[in-house]
Amino acid sequence: MALPQQVRLVEVGPRDGLQNESGPVIATAIKVELIERLAEAGLCHIESASFVSPKWVPQMGDGAEVMAGIRRKPGVIYSALAPNLKGLEAALAADVSEVAVFTAASEAFTQKNINCSVAESLERFAPLIERARAEGLRVRGYVSTTLGCPYAGEIAPSEVAAVSRDLYQLGCYEISLGDTIGVGTPLKAKRMLEAVSREIPMEHLAAHFHDTYGQALANLYAVLEEGIAVIDSSVSGLGGCPYARGASGNVATEDVLYMLNGLGIETGVNLDKLVATSCWISEQLNRPLTARVAQAIGCTAQPASESESESESESESDNTNH
Amino acid sequence: MALPQQVRLVEVGPRDGLQNESGPVIATAIKVELIERLAEAGLCHIESASFVSPKWVPQMGDGAEVMAGIRRKPGVIYSALAPNLKGLEAALAADVSEVAVFTAASEAFTQKNINCSVAESLERFAPLIERARAEGLRVRGYVSTTLGCPYAGEIAPSEVAAVSRDLYQLGCYEISLGDTIGVGTPLKAKRMLEAVSREIPMEHLAAHFHDTYGQALANLYAVLEEGIAVIDSSVSGLGGCPYARGASGNVATEDVLYMLNGLGIETGVNLDKLVATSCWISEQLNRPLTARVAQAIGCTAQPASESESESESESESDNTNH
Repeated sequence: MALPQQVRLVEVGPRDGLQNESGPVIATAIKVELIERLAEAGLCHIESASFVSPKWVPQMGDGAEVMAGIRRKPGVIYSALAPNLKGLEAALAADVSEVAVFTAASEAFTQKNINCSVAESLERFAPLIERARAEGLRVRGYVSTTLGCPYAGEIAPSEVAAVSRDLYQLGCYEISLGDTIGVGTPLKAKRMLEAVSREIPMEHLAAHFHDTYGQALANLYAVLEEGIAVIDSSVSGLGGCPYARGASGNVATEDVLYMLNGLGIETGVNLDKLVATSCWISEQLNRPLTARVAQAIGCTAQPASESESESESESESDNTNH
Repeated sequence: MALPQQVRLVEVGPRDGLQNESGPVIATAIKVELIERLAEAGLCHIESASFVSPKWVPQMGDGAEVMAGIRRKPGVIYSALAPNLKGLEAALAADVSEVAVFTAASEAFTQKNINCSVAESLERFAPLIERARAEGLRVRGYVSTTLGCPYAGEIAPSEVAAVSRDLYQLGCYEISLGDTIGVGTPLKAKRMLEAVSREIPMEHLAAHFHDTYGQALANLYAVLEEGIAVIDSSVSGLGGCPYARGASGNVATEDVLYMLNGLGIETGVNLDKLVATSCWISEQLNRPLTARVAQAIGCTAQPASESESESESESESDNTNH
């Protein structure tokens, strides 16, 4: 199957990434600068804030200040999570470009995570989506645990398809399919997507894969083959799911971009600027560089080609002429 | 295209991995135990030693002792690198199961690495391969830099095909195609393999990909779709190429195995035992766990499911009911 010629990258680092940072609350100024750097690197859809109660997610308590602080770049979507009507009003007041809601394909996960059934979560979203659209805002829907659940284990593709269809019918313009705990592998990702795409046109679907088991790029390649052209990722691989022990979370934007560049797929994002942003935010958060591409390219200004050709030792220098 | 039902994993950690470890020479007993643990995990082809001059690769100076120390498991191939006739005689004396030779698809790399042209490297191998086969040993051929060279940059698939064909015609039973600096992406890997497989039947080809830019699993999935059924990998991602700055080397066996398990492809390797071996060798070498699957599963004896369900916090716990 032909790969898409273009992919839209949805950068979730400032929200899905930072909200999982432990330690002290990150300064608003750092969040604002991160978002501005990402826009400058060419990302045109940046999930920038979450309008939830700071009681639940202290790291996201400054959503209004972040949104007010960003120098908006024309054409860039600055979206925010709005889990309920109160959150939506705050998001509207902060002049977000669009909002997002989330539920899951797993009943067990939804009960543990948002304390209601999947059906109840959809009922809660109906008036939110209606109000957002009345205000001219598009609503993006996230479906978690599409390739596995920490409680229920395997998730049937038909379950993912059913909740995705419901969210779509409620008025979400795009459904982002999350492998929340990163347990998926390529054929499972394909089969899940095939089931969902029987309900919703492919151009309204996005892949939101975590790299916990190192499978995200392989899974993304597999769904690109199926026609997916929207990918969620997080600069520097920021964030993650605390349920998956000691492991990374969102797939790193620079790792995805390196693959897309190699595949000849256009994104409009500049790899060097993105890696520089990855280095910068890692330094700000005192966090080791975990994205492979950032590690490989490194945080100096030197182009990779120069430095690589300077070295004299080599991995397979089992010299024959000795 | 249908994926293969079975894949043979060629474990290169004890050789391609350990030879790149900096610091003091690793004790022979650790090398022996690593090889025995890998065999116990179900790996049936283990590159165990390199018969090169210790002047060039001090870390591999105890090849004879390693081979003598292994309790051989029936059916397991214990192979060794033998870059020249002197090395071959040492390998024969050590009773290796088979030997391997290597050259590259890049003239510039071959000149820098083994101080001769590609053609000269093949001339050197001719009598070696003849002698090995006369002694009843199979010879495996490695071709480095098949997806890019630190000196020459891009490598044409036709160049890879030409040197692979020559090695195969000299008598190598299998050609292992190395992405030595890990710069490949899926379509480039496919195109390279397509070119080589026009010269050599697919069942005599193997993929030897490095994970420097995080692309190895995606590239492996792409070549599995083309019919590759032999994959080289290194437990815990041991090893690497010093040219690629601060980055990982060989793709980790546990990351590959997780993907193959998910794809329903049989390998005969036990993931739990493999991860335990990854944890063990990382501890022996005082090296952080870098393989994603080892990080995710962790080094305790607890099964993942139990521990996962204990936690109460969650990545998307932007609770609506507050």
